[in-house]
Amino acid sequence: MAITAEIITIGDEILYGQTLDTNSHWISSALDAINIKVFQKTTIGDTRDHILTAFREAENRANIILITGGLGPTKDDLTKPLLAEYFGVPLRLNEEALEEITSLFARAGRTMTDPNRKQAELPEGCLKITNRMGTAPGMWMERDNRVFISMPGVPYEMKNMMQEVLLPKLAARFGQGAIFHKIVRTVGVPESHLASLISDWEDQLPAHLKLAYLPSMGQVKLRLTGYGDNEQVLKQEVHEAIKQVLPVIKKHIYGYDEDELESVIGQWLKQQNKTLGTAESCTGGHLAGMITSVPGSSAYYKGTIVSYDNEVKESLLDVPAEMIEKHGAVSEEVVKTMAENVRKKLKVDVGLATSGIAGPDGGTVEKPVGTIWIAYADDKKTIAKKLNFTKDRKLNIQFSALAALNLFRLNFLSN
Amino acid sequence: MAITAEIITIGDEILYGQTLDTNSHWISSALDAINIKVFQKTTIGDTRDHILTAFREAENRANIILITGGLGPTKDDLTKPLLAEYFGVPLRLNEEALEEITSLFARAGRTMTDPNRKQAELPEGCLKITNRMGTAPGMWMERDNRVFISMPGVPYEMKNMMQEVLLPKLAARFGQGAIFHKIVRTVGVPESHLASLISDWEDQLPAHLKLAYLPSMGQVKLRLTGYGDNEQVLKQEVHEAIKQVLPVIKKHIYGYDEDELESVIGQWLKQQNKTLGTAESCTGGHLAGMITSVPGSSAYYKGTIVSYDNEVKESLLDVPAEMIEKHGAVSEEVVKTMAENVRKKLKVDVGLATSGIAGPDGGTVEKPVGTIWIAYADDKKTIAKKLNFTKDRKLNIQFSALAALNLFRLNFLSN
Repeated sequence: MAITAEIITIGDEILYGQTLDTNSHWISSALDAINIKVFQKTTIGDTRDHILTAFREAENRANIILITGGLGPTKDDLTKPLLAEYFGVPLRLNEEALEEITSLFARAGRTMTDPNRKQAELPEGCLKITNRMGTAPGMWMERDNRVFISMPGVPYEMKNMMQEVLLPKLAARFGQGAIFHKIVRTVGVPESHLASLISDWEDQLPAHLKLAYLPSMGQVKLRLTGYGDNEQVLKQEVHEAIKQVLPVIKKHIYGYDEDELESVIGQWLKQQNKTLGTAESCTGGHLAGMITSVPGSSAYYKGTIVSYDNEVKESLLDVPAEMIEKHGAVSEEVVKTMAENVRKKLKVDVGLATSGIAGPDGGTVEKPVGTIWIAYADDKKTIAKKLNFTKDRKLNIQFSALAALNLFRLNFLSN
Repeated sequence: MAITAEIITIGDEILYGQTLDTNSHWISSALDAINIKVFQKTTIGDTRDHILTAFREAENRANIILITGGLGPTKDDLTKPLLAEYFGVPLRLNEEALEEITSLFARAGRTMTDPNRKQAELPEGCLKITNRMGTAPGMWMERDNRVFISMPGVPYEMKNMMQEVLLPKLAARFGQGAIFHKIVRTVGVPESHLASLISDWEDQLPAHLKLAYLPSMGQVKLRLTGYGDNEQVLKQEVHEAIKQVLPVIKKHIYGYDEDELESVIGQWLKQQNKTLGTAESCTGGHLAGMITSVPGSSAYYKGTIVSYDNEVKESLLDVPAEMIEKHGAVSEEVVKTMAENVRKKLKVDVGLATSGIAGPDGGTVEKPVGTIWIAYADDKKTIAKKLNFTKDRKLNIQFSALAALNLFRLNFLSN
């Protein structure tokens, strides 16, 4: 019998769509890594009956029930008293928890409030989980071989508790069976096209190897999962199966498993000891933001010039006014010049540039919203590509930045 | 009896934590706006029994069941056949759906695949919902005054269906009762501090006015919700209640309801006909990305210089090499110079600058990871602020960009 987990997310703000739940996403993949499968995720509001019902239903479905939210110092937080009620125990002041909260306030140089003091009260007999990043302690409660774990809703507080205490504890207690994932990451190819490319291969997969398509913005991840008893055997089977399909989709692949396109590109630049700079118009810094999200990117990335204004294109990127006059800022000529000139301006080996109409305004008949030019320039060549998106501003910006990184991927190694 | 909805999200990729579910978040707030409350969100995997069980349980809990995912052209998509099975009807080719899919491929100039053709098969008697952004049609199925709605998992396809067809249809069919939200948005004040500031006021709220704290990165939204029959009365009561608490928290408030800090700042700049430019080091373009995420920001935002490299600080921002030598790039002197010089370089009225150590590497004893300087400069003054974060790279970057916008908020209007 496989060990299963259920994640219960508590909070009206999530049901009402005021706050995006990123916690259960993070918890899922963390549990997956220690071979604990999440069977269901349940999100409910801050109401007594519904919370108690969810506890009961989850206890029937899963071995491990992880609860986030409803632990704040404020009056709409119900999780702790209801957990005590569900287990039929009173709340008692936990001296150690009180000390931890007090010292946390001392370090931060803030004065402690009564609501914070109440956070040191815990259900009798529960194991306190120290919260090093915030004031609400976590809780571990057990009965009939079912574990209830309660954590704060603040993401970095929850993550710290999971990483430092809960994941090791859960792995030691419940880790079992064998499961092996391998992810192949593709960019710039639609899911349905990818599906038809590998359809024959997919049909021949044995039953214990399961393929999943994970489409995200502009990318499709192929996840092949093997289930069995022996991880080494599974690992070999999965790798074998993937080796067979690679030739068919090679040109769309940028990486595997946790690789991100921006980090892969960074590794290439580091290996070749080359530097990168960007010149952005429509992406407005988003491209630079993606590149610099990678730890250590300062080793190969020198910066960006976001010329959101034509004057700036002229003054900082030396784009001739006549060129903008003649072809418009959103043109092959201008985006190529931006990519070439940012190389000189920032003294880098490779320049990437974007110029387009993100919308919602600024579109014309011949250049509608979503018309975007991107360019790659190195010491040997300058390549420009025109994109036609039909999406909203945010998506146009994100897709354009991704397309620029993909343009780099397709041209950098071909020298 | 209030009309309630349940959102069922189907997909192993979400249970395994490979893909973040943003759909249910968006759907929740869209339904909230037409007074339909989401009672529960349930996320389950791509397994026959669990999907059928979830359908049955949801039908007992809610009037409207919205299902996302499992409609792709690929083999791991089960929603459509199981919906047909649950309603006891066969799948039939829908000619109109086939036409829509065919013309979509024609427009995109792509060739249609067999999996795509199968997407035109729908459960008998279901209402087809046109998908203008993709190939999988949506479905509306009804029995015993319960509505099942199935939508693709691709966010922009789902949103387009909801906005153009489903929300109007649901509002016409189920819209009822009265509910009124007002959100007060604060930045730079911790939830517990805010809670103790307004505790007395909160205690005096009548039972039908419910306050919720919605903490997000560096911000806390206060949402006051009124429940009743007459929206006008509720609206007045909510506004009255909020008017009483404003004086206590005024200096922390940047906006209301859907206001975003970056858009509020944009409105101020437009009103005063002023322009903004930024010089970023540790935020690496993230600050520019936030500012340019606002439609129409090109009217007041001229650009950013991301000087990720000290050379670039010197060459593009005229930061004296000696200054960097003497005080280090992460210093009050350098960040002030960056803010002042970007004003001249980009010919803008206000300059914002960031320089810090985002981590994970680059920290020292006197300047640990999370040490960040931000600066504001206009024609009258230059203000710098030191931040000490203890978070990871991503959070340090996001908090720093937010703090820079808050620094603008606190100084721009005070002239």
